[in-house]
Amino acid sequence: MLTFDPHDDNYIEELSTYVAIPSVSRDASAETMEEAAQWLATQLSFANGRVVPTAGHPAVRGEWLGAFGAPTILVYGHYDVQPTGDLAEWNTPPFELIRDGEVIRGRGVTDDKGPVLIVLKVAQAFLAQEGKLPLNVKFLFEGEEEVGSPNLPDYVRAHAEELAADLVISADGAMWRPTEPSLSVGSKGLVTFDLKVSGAKEDLHSGRYGGTVANPVHVLSEILAGFHNRDGSITVEGFYDGIPPLTSERRAEIAKVVFSDEEYRKTLGIDELFGEAGYSTIERLWERPTLEINGIQAGGKYTVIPHLATAHISCRLVPGQIPENVLGAIKKHIEKIEHDGVKIAMRADHGGVPAYTIPADHPANRAATTALEEVYPGESVLLAVIGGTLPATALFEDVLGVKTLFFSFATADEKHHAPNEFMRIKRLREGMRAWEVLWRLLADGPHKLAIVGK
Amino acid sequence: MLTFDPHDDNYIEELSTYVAIPSVSRDASAETMEEAAQWLATQLSFANGRVVPTAGHPAVRGEWLGAFGAPTILVYGHYDVQPTGDLAEWNTPPFELIRDGEVIRGRGVTDDKGPVLIVLKVAQAFLAQEGKLPLNVKFLFEGEEEVGSPNLPDYVRAHAEELAADLVISADGAMWRPTEPSLSVGSKGLVTFDLKVSGAKEDLHSGRYGGTVANPVHVLSEILAGFHNRDGSITVEGFYDGIPPLTSERRAEIAKVVFSDEEYRKTLGIDELFGEAGYSTIERLWERPTLEINGIQAGGKYTVIPHLATAHISCRLVPGQIPENVLGAIKKHIEKIEHDGVKIAMRADHGGVPAYTIPADHPANRAATTALEEVYPGESVLLAVIGGTLPATALFEDVLGVKTLFFSFATADEKHHAPNEFMRIKRLREGMRAWEVLWRLLADGPHKLAIVGK
Repeated sequence: MLTFDPHDDNYIEELSTYVAIPSVSRDASAETMEEAAQWLATQLSFANGRVVPTAGHPAVRGEWLGAFGAPTILVYGHYDVQPTGDLAEWNTPPFELIRDGEVIRGRGVTDDKGPVLIVLKVAQAFLAQEGKLPLNVKFLFEGEEEVGSPNLPDYVRAHAEELAADLVISADGAMWRPTEPSLSVGSKGLVTFDLKVSGAKEDLHSGRYGGTVANPVHVLSEILAGFHNRDGSITVEGFYDGIPPLTSERRAEIAKVVFSDEEYRKTLGIDELFGEAGYSTIERLWERPTLEINGIQAGGKYTVIPHLATAHISCRLVPGQIPENVLGAIKKHIEKIEHDGVKIAMRADHGGVPAYTIPADHPANRAATTALEEVYPGESVLLAVIGGTLPATALFEDVLGVKTLFFSFATADEKHHAPNEFMRIKRLREGMRAWEVLWRLLADGPHKLAIVGK
Repeated sequence: MLTFDPHDDNYIEELSTYVAIPSVSRDASAETMEEAAQWLATQLSFANGRVVPTAGHPAVRGEWLGAFGAPTILVYGHYDVQPTGDLAEWNTPPFELIRDGEVIRGRGVTDDKGPVLIVLKVAQAFLAQEGKLPLNVKFLFEGEEEVGSPNLPDYVRAHAEELAADLVISADGAMWRPTEPSLSVGSKGLVTFDLKVSGAKEDLHSGRYGGTVANPVHVLSEILAGFHNRDGSITVEGFYDGIPPLTSERRAEIAKVVFSDEEYRKTLGIDELFGEAGYSTIERLWERPTLEINGIQAGGKYTVIPHLATAHISCRLVPGQIPENVLGAIKKHIEKIEHDGVKIAMRADHGGVPAYTIPADHPANRAATTALEEVYPGESVLLAVIGGTLPATALFEDVLGVKTLFFSFATADEKHHAPNEFMRIKRLREGMRAWEVLWRLLADGPHKLAIVGK
């Protein structure tokens, strides 16, 4: 067994320099993104770590290939983070890692900077204490995961041979909840788009023009309200196309998961849960696609008729849905809407991502289950679906021909993408031990054979 | 006839120091508001001008009462301005008066700093050139018109005797359009309110929670979309209560107004006009109440389920509608809406204002018509309704027992409340001459008798 630093503070200190780099892929400068990438490359110096250009923000590569005869894995993660949103909603400065009891807080700490640090520390410990890694490891960290990985496909295709591996292990993802260890058997897909409704050349005084022109906010509200039926289902024709019906077998599996609507509701601070009629909470979360309005903006507080109203919308997809078809169905739905005196425009973001699955009995999942059972003795490992989207997985399957094991030590309640993102400190140490055990398991014995044989 | 300064630039220079004070009643500091009030008080030094406290931003008072036997008028205006809104939409700095060809640009220049300057210069010219004013003039300028004059009622009631006059003349308001001189026979009332829909304790990741909780933006969109029928009428039960039907006589009067939908549409830069079915554009503008969403805000660009969605809404009222009843009807309408998992809150702003009318044949309107005919020879004076709201008018009628003549030299197309507010330079000079003629007319002869007799 490896010995890890007994002082959490040393890991936290290292992580804090990384979190301090505000690598917001949506709007950071090229210099800032380069700085974050460089931080990772330096950590990977044992593996010839280097920043490599893509058509967008650079990626970081590295490889240690000294385990002759052992399998080769590709470790995936990302160094970019989400925007902070409204700073007023943060209780601590987003780009300052703050230790607060059992947790550390800061933008990106759990998505994905902390989980990536875990892997780096495990690899460094192997080399320091045993002089080698138990298997061959390639590293690929990207800087555009939070904007849908628009340039990763071209990069991976162009370097497919160099990236070839027997398995991808993703340091991105999350355990489903804090109460027990879990693995993911899938993640939802994603398409996102903007709607823009525009009226007059500029904002108009609501008294001097009111009643004579269409108000873009009214029209946008109608469009947004029209996306859902009162029972929570989505009205867009063709949206659900391709989704196989939920089998009674799968329903029975899900019903076995210990889950309290009551507790979930309380954690979120709401009176009632809500969602598509006919499905339980977990069924909706794991098995059903969604269309959520992420933001709206128009006018201000003064009494005008705004000339422009905008919304940003995202759909999470399930297996069977094809991203382009979903966007096409929505486009058709929007085009059918007509309203005098306004222009309605839809702009789809690049990088639609299909849902992804990895079989529950895939050898990588079996090895990971064993590793988690060793780190969490006496607890059984739950197989869950990640409601979030990991764009790289479908790509790796397509180009490299291998599945991706989700092995992150983030937890889904740690305010990913929201203000006050945090990570549980104990997960750092649990993660390091689990990665160590997993690598040893995959390096040899039945798991190795099963993986390499695939 | 008075002689006015032949150089526009001198007036513009004075006005520019006034516009440079960012007296935004909604959010300026007390010091800034005081500075603007003090600027006015200094201009009124011929009338013992002084800043006087109210429960909110101070008012400015002054009086010149040396015209024994002549009527007494109360000149009303305001020194506060609207917020700038999005600075990116301004082509010039809002608080810098910029001369641009035939117009001057800046926040507040036409609402109401320029129109107030006109009166000040007329009074000063009378005193400088004739040693007296033709009638007794009291001045009352407030600092909260743009937030609904919440503290003016108490102030006017407490000082009713000192403010007593035979007529109020408002330097606030606007000519209806630039093509001909016009007077106003009424202005619309106003109620404003905020809607707030809140869900979970904080923003949630749209993947990790999507499908399980109500999205406050969806619910807000439904509420906003539900305020109007597809034909543009308002769904709120009781909203139209008290409005007398539009008479065929009034319809015929309105039909006589030369107005081109086509030109209006082009000026605004839209493809089609839109509004309540069954009414012409001017009928909707002058005779029908409106409910307009002025702004919406929720979330941001990242893929979250926002925990809060807000809207600001204003209703313009017509004679017969009672502001409290309209707000009550909307409150009832909102309370009927139920949605699992969100809280819906409505907060009405203070200072609901009823619509106001002054008869077309009121002696003040007759005198004003004569004054305008002298300044605009050969043009006939149009009688229009101000779609905007002048909260003080109903108050003056109630407390002082007199009507308010609207005599502003702003024009309704000068982007009141919007970015790039401007005023036509020639209106300064036209306004000065018109106020001079009006004062002389009211001071003596039939107009005087009619006013004092009322």
